[in-house]
Amino acid sequence: MSKIVTFGEIMLRLMPEDGHRLLQNDRLEATFGGGEANVAVSLANFGLDAAYVTALPQNDVGQAAINAMRYFGVDTSKILRQGERMGVYFVEKGQSQRPSKVLYDRKYSAISMAARSDFDWDAIFEGATWFHFTGITPALSDALKGACLDACKAAKARGITISCDLNYRKNLWSTEAAYETMTQLVPYVDVCIANEEDAEKVLGISAKDTDVGAGKLSQEGYRDVAREISQRYGCSSVAITLRSSISANDNNWAGMLYTGGEFYDSKSYNIHLWDRVGGGDSFGAGLIYAMSENYAPQDVINFAVAASCLKQTIQGDFNRVSVAEVKNLMGGDGSGRVQR
Amino acid sequence: MSKIVTFGEIMLRLMPEDGHRLLQNDRLEATFGGGEANVAVSLANFGLDAAYVTALPQNDVGQAAINAMRYFGVDTSKILRQGERMGVYFVEKGQSQRPSKVLYDRKYSAISMAARSDFDWDAIFEGATWFHFTGITPALSDALKGACLDACKAAKARGITISCDLNYRKNLWSTEAAYETMTQLVPYVDVCIANEEDAEKVLGISAKDTDVGAGKLSQEGYRDVAREISQRYGCSSVAITLRSSISANDNNWAGMLYTGGEFYDSKSYNIHLWDRVGGGDSFGAGLIYAMSENYAPQDVINFAVAASCLKQTIQGDFNRVSVAEVKNLMGGDGSGRVQR
Amino acid sequence: MSKIVTFGEIMLRLMPEDGHRLLQNDRLEATFGGGEANVAVSLANFGLDAAYVTALPQNDVGQAAINAMRYFGVDTSKILRQGERMGVYFVEKGQSQRPSKVLYDRKYSAISMAARSDFDWDAIFEGATWFHFTGITPALSDALKGACLDACKAAKARGITISCDLNYRKNLWSTEAAYETMTQLVPYVDVCIANEEDAEKVLGISAKDTDVGAGKLSQEGYRDVAREISQRYGCSSVAITLRSSISANDNNWAGMLYTGGEFYDSKSYNIHLWDRVGGGDSFGAGLIYAMSENYAPQDVINFAVAASCLKQTIQGDFNRVSVAEVKNLMGGDGSGRVQR
Amino acid sequence: MSKIVTFGEIMLRLMPEDGHRLLQNDRLEATFGGGEANVAVSLANFGLDAAYVTALPQNDVGQAAINAMRYFGVDTSKILRQGERMGVYFVEKGQSQRPSKVLYDRKYSAISMAARSDFDWDAIFEGATWFHFTGITPALSDALKGACLDACKAAKARGITISCDLNYRKNLWSTEAAYETMTQLVPYVDVCIANEEDAEKVLGISAKDTDVGAGKLSQEGYRDVAREISQRYGCSSVAITLRSSISANDNNWAGMLYTGGEFYDSKSYNIHLWDRVGGGDSFGAGLIYAMSENYAPQDVINFAVAASCLKQTIQGDFNRVSVAEVKNLMGGDGSGRVQR
Amino acid sequence: MSKIVTFGEIMLRLMPEDGHRLLQNDRLEATFGGGEANVAVSLANFGLDAAYVTALPQNDVGQAAINAMRYFGVDTSKILRQGERMGVYFVEKGQSQRPSKVLYDRKYSAISMAARSDFDWDAIFEGATWFHFTGITPALSDALKGACLDACKAAKARGITISCDLNYRKNLWSTEAAYETMTQLVPYVDVCIANEEDAEKVLGISAKDTDVGAGKLSQEGYRDVAREISQRYGCSSVAITLRSSISANDNNWAGMLYTGGEFYDSKSYNIHLWDRVGGGDSFGAGLIYAMSENYAPQDVINFAVAASCLKQTIQGDFNRVSVAEVKNLMGGDGSGRVQR
Amino acid sequence: MSKIVTFGEIMLRLMPEDGHRLLQNDRLEATFGGGEANVAVSLANFGLDAAYVTALPQNDVGQAAINAMRYFGVDTSKILRQGERMGVYFVEKGQSQRPSKVLYDRKYSAISMAARSDFDWDAIFEGATWFHFTGITPALSDALKGACLDACKAAKARGITISCDLNYRKNLWSTEAAYETMTQLVPYVDVCIANEEDAEKVLGISAKDTDVGAGKLSQEGYRDVAREISQRYGCSSVAITLRSSISANDNNWAGMLYTGGEFYDSKSYNIHLWDRVGGGDSFGAGLIYAMSENYAPQDVINFAVAASCLKQTIQGDFNRVSVAEVKNLMGGDGSGRVQR
Repeated sequence: MSKIVTFGEIMLRLMPEDGHRLLQNDRLEATFGGGEANVAVSLANFGLDAAYVTALPQNDVGQAAINAMRYFGVDTSKILRQGERMGVYFVEKGQSQRPSKVLYDRKYSAISMAARSDFDWDAIFEGATWFHFTGITPALSDALKGACLDACKAAKARGITISCDLNYRKNLWSTEAAYETMTQLVPYVDVCIANEEDAEKVLGISAKDTDVGAGKLSQEGYRDVAREISQRYGCSSVAITLRSSISANDNNWAGMLYTGGEFYDSKSYNIHLWDRVGGGDSFGAGLIYAMSENYAPQDVINFAVAASCLKQTIQGDFNRVSVAEVKNLMGGDGSGRVQR
Repeated sequence: MSKIVTFGEIMLRLMPEDGHRLLQNDRLEATFGGGEANVAVSLANFGLDAAYVTALPQNDVGQAAINAMRYFGVDTSKILRQGERMGVYFVEKGQSQRPSKVLYDRKYSAISMAARSDFDWDAIFEGATWFHFTGITPALSDALKGACLDACKAAKARGITISCDLNYRKNLWSTEAAYETMTQLVPYVDVCIANEEDAEKVLGISAKDTDVGAGKLSQEGYRDVAREISQRYGCSSVAITLRSSISANDNNWAGMLYTGGEFYDSKSYNIHLWDRVGGGDSFGAGLIYAMSENYAPQDVINFAVAASCLKQTIQGDFNRVSVAEVKNLMGGDGSGRVQR
Repeated sequence: MSKIVTFGEIMLRLMPEDGHRLLQNDRLEATFGGGEANVAVSLANFGLDAAYVTALPQNDVGQAAINAMRYFGVDTSKILRQGERMGVYFVEKGQSQRPSKVLYDRKYSAISMAARSDFDWDAIFEGATWFHFTGITPALSDALKGACLDACKAAKARGITISCDLNYRKNLWSTEAAYETMTQLVPYVDVCIANEEDAEKVLGISAKDTDVGAGKLSQEGYRDVAREISQRYGCSSVAITLRSSISANDNNWAGMLYTGGEFYDSKSYNIHLWDRVGGGDSFGAGLIYAMSENYAPQDVINFAVAASCLKQTIQGDFNRVSVAEVKNLMGGDGSGRVQR
Repeated sequence: MSKIVTFGEIMLRLMPEDGHRLLQNDRLEATFGGGEANVAVSLANFGLDAAYVTALPQNDVGQAAINAMRYFGVDTSKILRQGERMGVYFVEKGQSQRPSKVLYDRKYSAISMAARSDFDWDAIFEGATWFHFTGITPALSDALKGACLDACKAAKARGITISCDLNYRKNLWSTEAAYETMTQLVPYVDVCIANEEDAEKVLGISAKDTDVGAGKLSQEGYRDVAREISQRYGCSSVAITLRSSISANDNNWAGMLYTGGEFYDSKSYNIHLWDRVGGGDSFGAGLIYAMSENYAPQDVINFAVAASCLKQTIQGDFNRVSVAEVKNLMGGDGSGRVQR
Repeated sequence: MSKIVTFGEIMLRLMPEDGHRLLQNDRLEATFGGGEANVAVSLANFGLDAAYVTALPQNDVGQAAINAMRYFGVDTSKILRQGERMGVYFVEKGQSQRPSKVLYDRKYSAISMAARSDFDWDAIFEGATWFHFTGITPALSDALKGACLDACKAAKARGITISCDLNYRKNLWSTEAAYETMTQLVPYVDVCIANEEDAEKVLGISAKDTDVGAGKLSQEGYRDVAREISQRYGCSSVAITLRSSISANDNNWAGMLYTGGEFYDSKSYNIHLWDRVGGGDSFGAGLIYAMSENYAPQDVINFAVAASCLKQTIQGDFNRVSVAEVKNLMGGDGSGRVQR
Repeated sequence: MSKIVTFGEIMLRLMPEDGHRLLQNDRLEATFGGGEANVAVSLANFGLDAAYVTALPQNDVGQAAINAMRYFGVDTSKILRQGERMGVYFVEKGQSQRPSKVLYDRKYSAISMAARSDFDWDAIFEGATWFHFTGITPALSDALKGACLDACKAAKARGITISCDLNYRKNLWSTEAAYETMTQLVPYVDVCIANEEDAEKVLGISAKDTDVGAGKLSQEGYRDVAREISQRYGCSSVAITLRSSISANDNNWAGMLYTGGEFYDSKSYNIHLWDRVGGGDSFGAGLIYAMSENYAPQDVINFAVAASCLKQTIQGDFNRVSVAEVKNLMGGDGSGRVQR
């Protein structure tokens, strides 16, 4: 059976209620989220064996983060309990022309202060079949860069499939720093995941005829990008999410998978968004799930896009949907008719 | 003056706040609802004399259900207080491609365990001018099948107008069982109400050129259905609601009335839904109100569709709108401009 | 540096949570709002020096209104503490075909009972560069009519720029009464602000080829209106907001500025509304801000419309956006892409 | 069967959540309450036939007040729909040394603006057996003074029992004004209810050896007061509530009934208060219920005090307890052990 | 290492917010609870390996119950997914003289409809060291009576310690039925837990000089009870909780352990209660934890009473305290001074 | 007129609702607080001119902190906008034997990273009459130690009264480090404020016959402490708060002032606590207010203790009471009787 290990940072996520601006009133919704944690939760919720690796302080907030992942069945036994604080981020939901805002307070977090040697990858990968990380993890510190490299090597040595979501974060590092690091890590990656900006920002590979800010996406351009990533870094599969933002409430969402030299396009969904944060992570999780379950390539991309379409209709970073619900949407029922 | 009696099951309705998935957090909105109760509330709220017949346990939850109906002026004096529990249902509001979900926990409820002989229709119909029930009531138990039959006969004998919303519920009975029962009851019915699925599922009469799942509705097909119902069972009026679901947030909504051998179509509303549960019931209530008040047929269907359009913009099963508000929409003001 | 004084009534604003109908459940959101107070808050929030003049009772509710304005940095030192009550208004948010409703309980409020002589305009205008009021203030009482006239004369004498938003409120006065009063005040006004109804209702100047109720707005017609106001009353600038209501959730929103004999049109925004109350006030504030900061005319109207577009995506009367956010939208980024 | 009519003012009651100070945050709990309305609700909830007479504006807030009373089964058919506003009051719950605060905004309410001739007492008293009002009603206006007098005379003429809770409110009238009016009304009263302050403030009859502010209550003194009221005004029964306030959280609560020339003392409860507003009204309702049901005098005072003890453990003005619950406490079970 | 298996029913627990009466407003707090589930959660939270056995329907509510237990680290892999509904119970928090109320809607639940043969005790007890159940489980059905007997025999055969909390529930069975069943099960029990009522109601062994309703508890009487249970049924340890209820807010709470022929009394806590439901279960969990960790007998009872004292200061059935917190209270720090 | 400057750290304060344990559900109340900020708010709310000095990041959370202080009229114009984050702390309200918990995440905050040279004390003290800081500020960093010294010297030079609340925080520094720093600062202090632990922990001066943990406080011992502080460090006044904790809900609270060689004891309040965090700060503010207003020494200590008694009945760090309310309690009315 598949066992997926993911590695990164989980943060306390604070969001005002009722579409309010940040601190407009005195209520915050407190949940947890973070790129790789979101993937682990999604996979556990789909019924796979998923373990999450991070460092969290030995206090009530750190414990609550662990409990929140156990809720979905994630194996949290490999999480280090050390450090002084966990990262916090504030999310303000956008509306119409007003964009969603994410404000990070993640510096000095336990995971970003962890040493490279804190992670015993041999122990962590016991029984694992898949390793997933994102471009956020190595961006957090030099030590984590090293830890990602160690993890990739250990995984490779054990024949574990490696996936990476490039996930560029401009407030964590420059494109130059990202390039330098990620070009060392991507060669270990089997399944490379990127959105419309990442390939350009991280690997310097840009799609022709595309202006993301203006909502102009070119399918042909992205095919070139995927092929280029695959060729340069030897990734056997490259998956790209395509988002065009009509407004803070409405986005078009689709995906493309390049594998075995072929391109597979998903259908495109016009999503009336509830919460788009975590959308990309739910795509990654859908991809890993479908590939782990040996779906055909077209079904892989269809499952990943349907799963992440549904996530964006749900509050919070975590994708609270079942495999059956994803399959139902994949199967074509997107009319939202009531189910009794 | 008109006095309408409705008969069925009212349940405790539990819904997560803020568009959350069921039990995503620890808050549930607790209200009450049920097809025939919704009709009674709507009618009382419109100012008619409406009485509701059901059975509810002699406990605080049962009493709260009664109080919730008295709030709107419904006559609850005919409700039996017996049995051990009342039905519960959970509603999860859909969003975009994610459908609304209704999860029932209604088995063994007081009303479904009631005996046929518990209902003294002569006493209940004292002063009544109209009797309304739906296909849900006889589906609950054999005893209620019998009670519906008794009620229809008693009503007929007193010259009371009878309306029935076919309202097929697949988790209550099979189409075969529904057919067997409903074909015994519909011959007593003067005003038959159905949606795009009911006529097919319950009476085996289907609209041509229509694929409900795919959102394809044929006006011509529905005209045939209405005429067929009228002819087979002798209903003097047949009203059909037409819903096409664009997404969980946006539906098109219209209705058609067949009466006196003529067809009357309402305008179609594109509704940005707030809560669609109870939409059909508010249509039925609008129809009964307008017919009781002797509206012309075109106004009857217009009123019913406008009333139910507004219901779907309001949280909860109950239609909290006034006659003036419905008339305002009927009169053409659907632009939603602020009223000061 | 600019110092703006605004004069009017601030009320306790009570709104049901979660899109509920008024008193559908037992929770009300309690904030504050009122045309001229909204302008003061917006301006203070943009970083200008803004003072607000009104009368409020010496009790906890009156104090909370003052505190709510101090929160944004408004100078409240000129507010009179007298009278017995403050106005209250209830807002019910509309949805789809169901309009938003505003129910006022503002009669006998401290400000509406204030005497003309309670306001010492020389002291109030110390250091001021701009005076703003709306058509609501003189509509509240004869004394306030007088006070507005006193204020206009005192401002004129000091060379203070005067702006007025015509803001017709049919439950405060008749069109005849409004005409009689406003035609005495508008001649003092430098910057006249109106929406698609005000000019007609207050000044009897109507746009050709326009039917507001039906959502039909004619640009040419409004140009005539603006030119006419300017000519009749000598206003150096006339700004008009143009709203067409598609539904209670979706409005088109644009503006036009007539100044120096030229017309400047903003782009039009299709707003998926969160809360439209206070939209016009945020337009006025944007206009005053941009003019105070000596923006070019085209930028003035663009800033005012972008500011008020954003307000309508935010709950409450107050426009909680920064200058940077408005400029970002003015600059063309209306796609609502998440900002990290 | 008993049918009780009560007459007075019901207001919108706004209270901050969670023990907050008024407007400490932006949430208010919105319910309804008012002395005589509270009595009607209590009686209807106990199962008696209770009707309430007042005037309420023809708007959504007025309708919600009516619905809130119908919820409990109160007959609201005699309520006048007229006037512009309904009274509002704010309640801030006290804690420890910090007292509860009530801030009224009730001036100009529909009932206080009603004319004496608006009330047709013959129609209102059709079938009634008991009439109840409080000292608040005549304090609202001269017209209501007259209406109370009319009501007393009409009730007397029909042999209807009259009860009155003296209920002195210092912000409605002076002690002199109260004395002048109430000494005209009390002679009609059969059952006079007062608390430790009312008799002194309204009728000028004070208890010896008592200092209410200091929490010093003398049983003997109150016996004198009751006897004196009875003798002066011919009330066949006088009931007095005795509250000593230890803190905003803890009060001692007891009552005394003088009837047939005998004194009946209740036991005294040490109440850990949840919400003491409405405590006196629930005492009055308990008294009326028990007398209507022909309880023995000792049981009358025991029932009234137990009922009002329980009210003070419940949020809101209304006493949401059943007769069985009151009897349970009367019977001695005040240990608060869980009931399964 | 210790591995504890518990067996019983977990229910959806619905409680009004803010100390409200049931359905006083439209909000319910939805959590989960049940005697044996509470014990499993407490033990997992203390860091032991705890597994829970029950049956839950294959729907979203059943899954949420499982997730809620996984949150604390409970092993839920042995839970059967079958049946149609899960039990529901409503809790209304008491205040002062008004008792807390628990209203059950647990009939026909998945676990109460499960067959005796559904439970494979050999598989369930793999690796287990302790088995815990309560008197509630066999009261649910004849099949569960059988299942409990099977479990006891299987546990005995494997040398697993067995504990049972007698936990009499009068709405589940009569004292006669309880006696007949429990006297068959208790002989297998090593550690018998009872409160002041259970021994009398279930085993017919009553404490002298004790009147629970009147809050009169005799230490000597309870020593006799413990000794008698031990002698009659061969339980090596008997633990008794002693609650005296001063009011719904304040209880005295203590415990006694009889083991090895000696009596060990805890100190007595005067608890200002937050939520007393689950108090007894947290006592049982404390006892099992301390015995599993080989505490000395005096420390066992001290730990169990301190743990359950803390539980009663926390909302919900589950005891959200750490071992360190319990030890801190055991160690004497009950002054509640703030911890920074 | 008095103008008070306070200097320290304000943090985002996150507290679970409804007495829940931290993150027991997904709601947090988000307010702001911090020792010296609390003093500034209290003083501004009492009507004095109060300015607050700190550093806050240039983001939405930092701005909200500023706004929250402006709400009460605090002058925030001297606040530096720099740094990356602001401190956060979590508060969990205790109950009965379960203590309140405060969990800090304040490291690396803008103020703790500020340079000594960032503060221009000459500009800050323009017009000031009083400077207040606490032992927390110099504990945050070496730079702030220096800044406090600079501030004391500048204040001394200007003849500004200096007050300091010793406020020992064990997670910020050791007693040794505190001693070394504070013994350099206290010689500048005119008014020294301490609680029952501070003098011992910070200055090594302990009260005889006192065991704080055990709730044993000796008045005589504290008189010695006050006299000793005054003599060693030349403080003209020393004020000590005396808290004895009965439970997390009930504390005794009193204070003592030593000035002019005389001792002044306040009365002692038994407080049924709502939120004790900020109690000491409200005492300091009361003291500063009363001394600034030249109250007699006995009135100074009475005002300070009454003010801080009331604070502890209010949620949040800030003391939301008026001078009139404090005087009312000082005057003896602590019975908590409702005020209408």
